[in-house]
Parts: sequence; C-alpha cells; structure tokens
Amino acid sequence: MVDEGRCCVPSGAPAMSAERAEALSRQFKAIADPNRLRLVSLISASAENEACVCDLTEPLELGQPTVSHHLKILVDAGILHREKRGVWAYFSIVPGALDALAGVLTEPK
Amino acid sequence: MVDEGRCCVPSGAPAMSAERAEALSRQFKAIADPNRLRLVSLISASAENEACVCDLTEPLELGQPTVSHHLKILVDAGILHREKRGVWAYFSIVPGALDALAGVLTEPK
Repeated sequence: MVDEGRCCVPSGAPAMSAERAEALSRQFKAIADPNRLRLVSLISASAENEACVCDLTEPLELGQPTVSHHLKILVDAGILHREKRGVWAYFSIVPGALDALAGVLTEPK
Repeated sequence: MVDEGRCCVPSGAPAMSAERAEALSRQFKAIADPNRLRLVSLISASAENEACVCDLTEPLELGQPTVSHHLKILVDAGILHREKRGVWAYFSIVPGALDALAGVLTEPK
C-alpha cells in the first residue's frame, strides 16, 4: 500500500546537534549586524591585523561608546581578542575563528 | 608636538560600505538561528541536495508550521530556493549563496 501522504523518503542524514547549532548561532548572531561586519572587516584588513577603538570610530562614523559596545559583543562571542596595552585596548581576530564559521557554511555536501 | 591622545595611525583601509554590510547582515541574521542552521545543514547534506518539509520536521523535532516559518525566512534571505512540485514544496540551497557568505568571512586579509 502506498502511503500517499508521504512525499519522499527521509534522507536519514543526521541533523547538526542542537548544542552545536546553539553555539554556532551565538557566533553568527554576533557578526550578523552591519556595524559589527564592518568592524570585523576593518580589523581583518588592518596592516597589523589589529586595531584600537580610535582606529575604528572614524571609518564607521560612530562614537567610541557605540564602537566599544559592538567590540565587546564580538569579544564575548570569541571572534575578537582584546589586549590592553597602556591606555588603549587593541583588538584582533581570534586565529581561526572566522575560518571555522566559514567552514560551517561550506562543509562537504 | 606629539599628540598623546592618539594611540596609533589609522590604517586607512576602507570600511566595507554601509550598504553591503546591511545586505550581508540580513543573510547572516537568517542563518544565525539554531533551527535554521540545522535546516541548512540537513538540506546541504541530503542526497538530492533538496528536501521537503516532511523530511525536516522529524530530525528537528519541530512541527510543520515552525519548520515552514524558518524555511520562509531562509528563502526570503536568498539562501534557499523553493520549488513547488505537486502538493509538496522542495527546498534547495541557492547555488553559491553559502559560499558567498563564507567568502565574506575569509576575504584576503
């Protein structure tokens, strides 16, 4: 007897675990904001692969408190590394963090 | 005279344009959700590179209306393609869509 209510045979491929999806979504949420995408882009493209807040306010035309707020979200998500040197904090991309996210999107099909 | 308030010389690297950041953030927001990450993962891994809602409810342990809601967000963001065949709609990854997002994260530094 054909089950006409069934459109197709389930692929049987295991779903990404709920835990992994939860962790990844936190990182994607951190970069899923126009200002934070621009911050990550600026820091990635900077000559020394790092930048301080004073480097970032002018290109984004944002105030320092707003830039600092967005930087903190990226640090908390494990995407940026923060290092205090003297009076300034310098931000760099956590090695491998963006490649890992990119890898999720291009995993072998 | 040294300007002691200045921590460093701005890199001068152009920021990603506000328009591009806005468009990309819409796509990243669409996938920055645990259920939607799992849906994209399931569809990518499916044998025919496509799936219908009936394939997706069981692995995610979600009802059909919830799955359909998340699929619509992914279609609207240009990540999934929807094709109606008979009574069922089939969903596939828009060719190149995920690679393009991954490319943003791994652009030449």
